Amino acid sequence: MEPLYVIKIGGNIIDDEAQLSSFLTAFAGIEGKKILVHGGGKLATKLAAQLGVEQQMIEGRRVTDVDTLRIVTMVYAGYINKNIVAHLQANQCNAIGLCGADGNILQSHKRQHATIDYGFVGDVDKVNTPVLQSLLAQQVTVVMAPITHNMEGQLLNTNADTIAQEIAQAMSALYQVHLIYSFEKAGVLLNADDDSTVIPAITQASYAQLKQQNIIFAGMIPKLDNAFAALNRGVHRVVIGKAEQLQQLIQQQSGTSIIHE
Amino acid sequence: MEPLYVIKIGGNIIDDEAQLSSFLTAFAGIEGKKILVHGGGKLATKLAAQLGVEQQMIEGRRVTDVDTLRIVTMVYAGYINKNIVAHLQANQCNAIGLCGADGNILQSHKRQHATIDYGFVGDVDKVNTPVLQSLLAQQVTVVMAPITHNMEGQLLNTNADTIAQEIAQAMSALYQVHLIYSFEKAGVLLNADDDSTVIPAITQASYAQLKQQNIIFAGMIPKLDNAFAALNRGVHRVVIGKAEQLQQLIQQQSGTSIIHE
Repeated sequence: MEPLYVIKIGGNIIDDEAQLSSFLTAFAGIEGKKILVHGGGKLATKLAAQLGVEQQMIEGRRVTDVDTLRIVTMVYAGYINKNIVAHLQANQCNAIGLCGADGNILQSHKRQHATIDYGFVGDVDKVNTPVLQSLLAQQVTVVMAPITHNMEGQLLNTNADTIAQEIAQAMSALYQVHLIYSFEKAGVLLNADDDSTVIPAITQASYAQLKQQNIIFAGMIPKLDNAFAALNRGVHRVVIGKAEQLQQLIQQQSGTSIIHE
Repeated sequence: MEPLYVIKIGGNIIDDEAQLSSFLTAFAGIEGKKILVHGGGKLATKLAAQLGVEQQMIEGRRVTDVDTLRIVTMVYAGYINKNIVAHLQANQCNAIGLCGADGNILQSHKRQHATIDYGFVGDVDKVNTPVLQSLLAQQVTVVMAPITHNMEGQLLNTNADTIAQEIAQAMSALYQVHLIYSFEKAGVLLNADDDSTVIPAITQASYAQLKQQNIIFAGMIPKLDNAFAALNRGVHRVVIGKAEQLQQLIQQQSGTSIIHE
């Protein structure tokens, strides 16, 4: 099968113009089919503060009231998404920026939770693979903002890592999918403050151990849970690593590889 | 040739949730190929005020400094565009929301003016008709936000009426294009306060007269200049009229038609 790179960019890279620009230049240079999924960085939080909209986070997820939904739709699907597209176009990469409502690419439902009301947060039900496949076949690079919809007119804020995973899984029926989570760290680290302690490979067994030893905790847990779920659903490989080493991540010379055995 | 409806929605309709919703339901019901171009309403102005970003208007054009560009990109390409798309999807209209940077659909340059610095305002150089044609052929309805780019990474704020005109003209080589400017008034009026005084048809000759008599003035002049330019460049017909009468505008039972003779 033809390779497809599904690459998530997030964290501090989005907020740093120089780093983002150099990442996008590297991304534009990747040969073959590719989809970029971006997070929101701190811009939405900053804009919410400027507008006096209080933000509540539960387990790393933003509680999304109606004002916050408006803010993240503006920042993610507007400012960040379109600036990334303009950057890629300037690098001769024919990009199209979309959210999950566009072409009904990502249909979701409002999260139901026994005790917590997350507000307008969406959990993905369905990836519209034919639309993505058709765009890729036309040599178009898709840039996805982490906003989905419920097919009833409601936009929903959706975790970008999850979107990358859902797209990677769904596209595995059609391509050999390489799912790459790129951020500001060199990978999964033994010592969170030391980039030289990157763990080159994690299996399901070593993951359980690392969690027990509290080496992997907090925000890294959903990332790795997603990674293993993706592998189990057909994704060829998952890599977590430094955005500025994108080329090496693709060539398996950097980062942490999440593998079956 | 197959008909293509290029429909501009603007003015107060965008700001009125109920009116916008009923317009979009009617729009979704139009059979055949269609492109929607939306303006920005008062949301960008309101957000700028909330953020303390001063707005300067020259001849109805927003002077776009770097903060204002950020605001219009968020509001136009983010909030408004994605809410319209979600609405249309809920009405079984397979919409994709784009700005001019996406797929390099609208390439522009920063406006050069002898005495006025409009800032990050773009004048359109090129419409990428193959991308639009390919989406339309897949039964996709394109929703365009009034943001373009210069292929060098710079987004530019661009007048939505002009975008509708440029797209209509460029697509005239491929379709029988009906360009419809829909807003809150019933058409071009003899008395601006009285919707019953709509002028059913305007020719180049009557236009000159109406301007001389000061019946047509201010914001209506660029609209009509665009309309005549579009006719002269191959557009089949141009209609200006009430958004809530969209079906009648399409059937030529309402609004002002701009015609050759």
